[in-house]
Amino acid sequence: MLEKVLNAESVAVVGASKNETKRGYQTIRTLLEEKYEGNIYPVNPKETSILGFKCHKAVSEIEGFVDLALIATPARTLPVVLEDCGKKGVQGAVILAGGFGETGQDGRKLENEVVAIADKHGIRLIGPNTSGMMNLKAGLNLVGMRDVPKGDIALLSQSGNMALTLITEARLKSKKGFSYYVGVGNEADIKFHEYLEFFRQDPQTRVILMYVEGMRQGRKFLEQAYKTTIEKPVVLLKSGRSATGKRSAGSHTGALAGMSAVADGAFKRAGIITVEKSDQLFPAAEALSNLPPIKNNKVAILADGGGHATIAADLLTDLGVEIPELGKKTQQRLRELLPAAASVPNPVDVAGGTDSDPSIFADCARAILKDPNVGGLLVVGLFGGYGIRFAESLSLMEEDAAHRMGKMVKKSQKPIVVHSLFSSAQPHSLDLLRYYKIPVYDSLDVATKCIGVLSEYGQYLGGYHAKFSFNIEAGKKSQPEVQVLIDNARQEKRRALLEHEAKQILTAHGADVADQLLAETAADAVAAAKATKGPVALKIVSPDILHKSDAGGVKLNLVGDAKVEKAFNAIMRNAKRYDAKADIRGVLVTPMLKDGMEIIIGTKIDDQFGPVIMFGIGGVLVEVLKDVVFRVLPISRRSARHMVDEIRSTKLLDGFRGERPSDRKAVVKLLLTVSEITEACPDIEELDLNPVLVHAKGLSIADARVILREA
Amino acid sequence: MLEKVLNAESVAVVGASKNETKRGYQTIRTLLEEKYEGNIYPVNPKETSILGFKCHKAVSEIEGFVDLALIATPARTLPVVLEDCGKKGVQGAVILAGGFGETGQDGRKLENEVVAIADKHGIRLIGPNTSGMMNLKAGLNLVGMRDVPKGDIALLSQSGNMALTLITEARLKSKKGFSYYVGVGNEADIKFHEYLEFFRQDPQTRVILMYVEGMRQGRKFLEQAYKTTIEKPVVLLKSGRSATGKRSAGSHTGALAGMSAVADGAFKRAGIITVEKSDQLFPAAEALSNLPPIKNNKVAILADGGGHATIAADLLTDLGVEIPELGKKTQQRLRELLPAAASVPNPVDVAGGTDSDPSIFADCARAILKDPNVGGLLVVGLFGGYGIRFAESLSLMEEDAAHRMGKMVKKSQKPIVVHSLFSSAQPHSLDLLRYYKIPVYDSLDVATKCIGVLSEYGQYLGGYHAKFSFNIEAGKKSQPEVQVLIDNARQEKRRALLEHEAKQILTAHGADVADQLLAETAADAVAAAKATKGPVALKIVSPDILHKSDAGGVKLNLVGDAKVEKAFNAIMRNAKRYDAKADIRGVLVTPMLKDGMEIIIGTKIDDQFGPVIMFGIGGVLVEVLKDVVFRVLPISRRSARHMVDEIRSTKLLDGFRGERPSDRKAVVKLLLTVSEITEACPDIEELDLNPVLVHAKGLSIADARVILREA
Repeated sequence: MLEKVLNAESVAVVGASKNETKRGYQTIRTLLEEKYEGNIYPVNPKETSILGFKCHKAVSEIEGFVDLALIATPARTLPVVLEDCGKKGVQGAVILAGGFGETGQDGRKLENEVVAIADKHGIRLIGPNTSGMMNLKAGLNLVGMRDVPKGDIALLSQSGNMALTLITEARLKSKKGFSYYVGVGNEADIKFHEYLEFFRQDPQTRVILMYVEGMRQGRKFLEQAYKTTIEKPVVLLKSGRSATGKRSAGSHTGALAGMSAVADGAFKRAGIITVEKSDQLFPAAEALSNLPPIKNNKVAILADGGGHATIAADLLTDLGVEIPELGKKTQQRLRELLPAAASVPNPVDVAGGTDSDPSIFADCARAILKDPNVGGLLVVGLFGGYGIRFAESLSLMEEDAAHRMGKMVKKSQKPIVVHSLFSSAQPHSLDLLRYYKIPVYDSLDVATKCIGVLSEYGQYLGGYHAKFSFNIEAGKKSQPEVQVLIDNARQEKRRALLEHEAKQILTAHGADVADQLLAETAADAVAAAKATKGPVALKIVSPDILHKSDAGGVKLNLVGDAKVEKAFNAIMRNAKRYDAKADIRGVLVTPMLKDGMEIIIGTKIDDQFGPVIMFGIGGVLVEVLKDVVFRVLPISRRSARHMVDEIRSTKLLDGFRGERPSDRKAVVKLLLTVSEITEACPDIEELDLNPVLVHAKGLSIADARVILREA
Repeated sequence: MLEKVLNAESVAVVGASKNETKRGYQTIRTLLEEKYEGNIYPVNPKETSILGFKCHKAVSEIEGFVDLALIATPARTLPVVLEDCGKKGVQGAVILAGGFGETGQDGRKLENEVVAIADKHGIRLIGPNTSGMMNLKAGLNLVGMRDVPKGDIALLSQSGNMALTLITEARLKSKKGFSYYVGVGNEADIKFHEYLEFFRQDPQTRVILMYVEGMRQGRKFLEQAYKTTIEKPVVLLKSGRSATGKRSAGSHTGALAGMSAVADGAFKRAGIITVEKSDQLFPAAEALSNLPPIKNNKVAILADGGGHATIAADLLTDLGVEIPELGKKTQQRLRELLPAAASVPNPVDVAGGTDSDPSIFADCARAILKDPNVGGLLVVGLFGGYGIRFAESLSLMEEDAAHRMGKMVKKSQKPIVVHSLFSSAQPHSLDLLRYYKIPVYDSLDVATKCIGVLSEYGQYLGGYHAKFSFNIEAGKKSQPEVQVLIDNARQEKRRALLEHEAKQILTAHGADVADQLLAETAADAVAAAKATKGPVALKIVSPDILHKSDAGGVKLNLVGDAKVEKAFNAIMRNAKRYDAKADIRGVLVTPMLKDGMEIIIGTKIDDQFGPVIMFGIGGVLVEVLKDVVFRVLPISRRSARHMVDEIRSTKLLDGFRGERPSDRKAVVKLLLTVSEITEACPDIEELDLNPVLVHAKGLSIADARVILREA
């Protein structure tokens, strides 16, 4: 669908110019330099020709067909220009100008107007407020940036400067390049997920690299990402986490200010590799595009000095990568290759064993990669610098090692990443490694992260579940009695369901809810209590009384007719005193619940990702330590299980200080029920089960609250 | 004291060689190249002269005085060589050979032997297992490394490769250099703190840069660090945190494997700037040596693009640095300088306003640094690259801006740090910035960290307390009755004090401990309970019964003579059944304690830092969430307060779900009492108060345990 836009065969440059400092000039020049084979149509009513091309007064006056318009004129001109493009049947437009949603109310109005015009004419928009777009294979470079290396990385960025940073890094520090670049800008029309879908299908693209400050349709993005990451890695840095960062993001992209807190977990689940540091973003993409992923999360370190090995071991451990002890055979082979002082269990420290012949690195690498317990190798230290430091003759041995290691990766399908202190001296041996697609970095932190992401991606692929989906199939398992309840509340203009109504929804979806009876009279309450066979709780039921305890509307642990009657009357009295006009529906009679571990389950609508679910252990842990976990709904049984395992205090569920373990299965089941309810009832905005008491067997839902979406 | 070693005026090279690949040759060559002015004495019985110097058969046969011996011969020769050095009156020796403590038992024995010989002759040792030592001003380069830049950074490293890394970075990415380098090696004789003391007093040194994998005398190091950091910054990377990292550290430095978990907090308190990433280590030292610290923790960001600004804002927030909104005047001035689209609150985004004249950067910087609310400035983006990207004429404007920003830093005493994407292209403007001591990095993460450490150091200096000390003044406030208790336990060959003894120690030091009476008979117990006026608890007192509850040795909430008598008898019966041979001293009668927030206070002896204290909120938070904080003892009132504030669950002490706030002052007082006890009683190895119940006013110590050090 974006084919005609990102692969346009003819381009109009609106705002074309003879001034060399203007984008309207630079773009045409760059299209020429890049040997773009499509037609180029400068548009500027004041000029007759630019760089040898005939200049048109308007897009509509161009004779040939026009796929794409690059619009370099100011924001206020856009409505007119787009109408003109519409006349011509243009398929897409890249709007460079700022001055739209990112500037505030007026800009947002203009942005909406522009999008409406584009919609009307079926024009898809990149931007506004973007540095442009490049299709490097076609030479369709609409950014006017020169010397952009071509390659297999598609770059999606919400910052032109970050794009420039990544492109510069690629040129200076790797042999990699780009298939496409899109400056997403304000995401006013084409959204992140559409670009992602295009790149997934693009045969030139092996990896998608993203810089994101905010996202308008997070859930659709997750859906596309989930389909994409099984085929091609997606590497992402999200920014705008802090308050000031959000402000900064808001003022320059006009996107939602910053990403939702839910994003990290959701991205991970969709198989996206997120990196924290901008230094790591390009290298991670390089590694993922060049090398096979690590299948078993196990990495060996080969070092020619202790310090680098120790630091790398710490960093890999932080990343959750294992550094297994090498097998006996491997260690024995390494002992044969290396001097007695060498350390061979892993990290392997050659202890001077490569000083007079650095080609021994390749012998060690071969022995290590042969070890079935090793999934990948990180070489750290001075490789590439032996010729520089000691004697030039050693350079040839380093080159020999580079050739052999390069071939080894291909044969073994196990990746090697190299840290070399001498990377910036650009010895030929390191260039050779890069030729074999082995990334080389002079930063130990970066090299370690590269091997780390290969392991993370391998872990993700290994655990991939094809059936899982981020797609809410609304109304799928809808229960008629639930809809009646909701309709009833709607009729009464209520958005908050009453406790017993909320519990009825849970019951309808198979949750185990204790008997409840709505008593309108004291006699009803006494009868209900009798039927319950045990102590009961009485709670006021009124749409006007949300804080039942505050209103004196709750009485617990009641035994015997007299106590129940007295409690009923007291509650009614209290309620009327609390709010004389309250619409009182009666008193809910429920059995007293068994003690158990307090947990909280809740759902809400995230403004970027839609329905999400939260789980935590109640009280201090949720309220003070914020020990909660979120997931984008719907969830699978597996992710429900992971939620329960993921909270920091999960051990508490195993029983603490001699208490019996809590029924984790019951919690998982309830999480799934809540997920199902969210799919079945798109009317629900919030559902809160707080607290739920988890027992050694089963659980009790002590309180339930449902808020409906605004009608 | 180390003067004669680190500033030696004559050097013997033991193991001198004519072979160019040997350290015994390279060292002499480098000393010549570096124009070392002291005497050089090659020692090798098989040669007559090396590089023009007369060769000696042994150190003792040298005619002139010898300050220092560089010993390049294998480990096993060391005892003989050192005895020979001793004969000559040598002051210090650098032992390069490995094969000592780092290799295991035999090596450790040899290391001890070597240290004993050195002690006997008063020879101070650097190493063994070191890459050597350099005094760059004197040309005393014993590492054989060429092209080491001279400067004001003293480098202490436990890894030769990390030293090489840092020296290479200095050469390639800065105008900085080193005053000294010491490869600390196994720290067999001279310890970290002695080097630190030397560098503190060394006028050439402005910053001390450290790479540490383990430390033998952590407390002495803290003491020296505390004295040093008020005069000169100390920047440190500690490695060997993970299990594999520790193994790696152990195998190559022979130091204690890895650093204690207590280290981070202790280093921070001593004013040491610790960095997590090796990429940040040298840049942090550069910034701290070049620039004034930031006094108010407030930084402005000046950017020519949104992405970099957003990332920098996130990173600074992570580092705890504030990004204040600029003053009205400043914003107004910036509006005058920049186009309408510019964002001026902070981060400042020039929005193209520097494209045709990058000298406007300096105008913006001046306006920003004038703002009294700004303590320092981080410039991020493309500065330095305008001449490269757009037109060469812009280079001169960038140079103008560089000159002006350089002078601004000097005048305002507020630092500027620059991130430039074009750093590696080495434009002259960036070289100029470095000339003015403004660090420039092409990594946004690194540049941000640089401004971050300037703020961290400024915060430390601002909060410095001259009176505080890491020094335990053992026995200072010793109480005679405490010593009697301890002596008594020693006589009985007990290391565990009984509960009432532990509580007596607390009482002796002024802690508020509830009345306790040791009852030997039921009648005693009844009388004691009567005196208590309220319900009591009875607990067995026996050095043979540590787990009192398990033995049925605890009865709670007893009221009335009959109940107390019955409980006494039951406890005695249970105890005898539990352990017929138990030495039973009686039953402790104490009043039942009021409910309160459970906290835990404990002390132990850390193998690197000596006595340390721990604090946490009892139960789940300590046991499951490990929410505890450690401090090296003794502590000041201020650090006791910080401990209470630092735990993640500290809010709980403010009252949770309507509970009354807990008495924080009482907790602080008890922490100080425990600190005092540790100083007064060097016999105590562990002291545990678990739990302590904190009330709205005051607290109750429910149980106390003391373990003495081995006699």
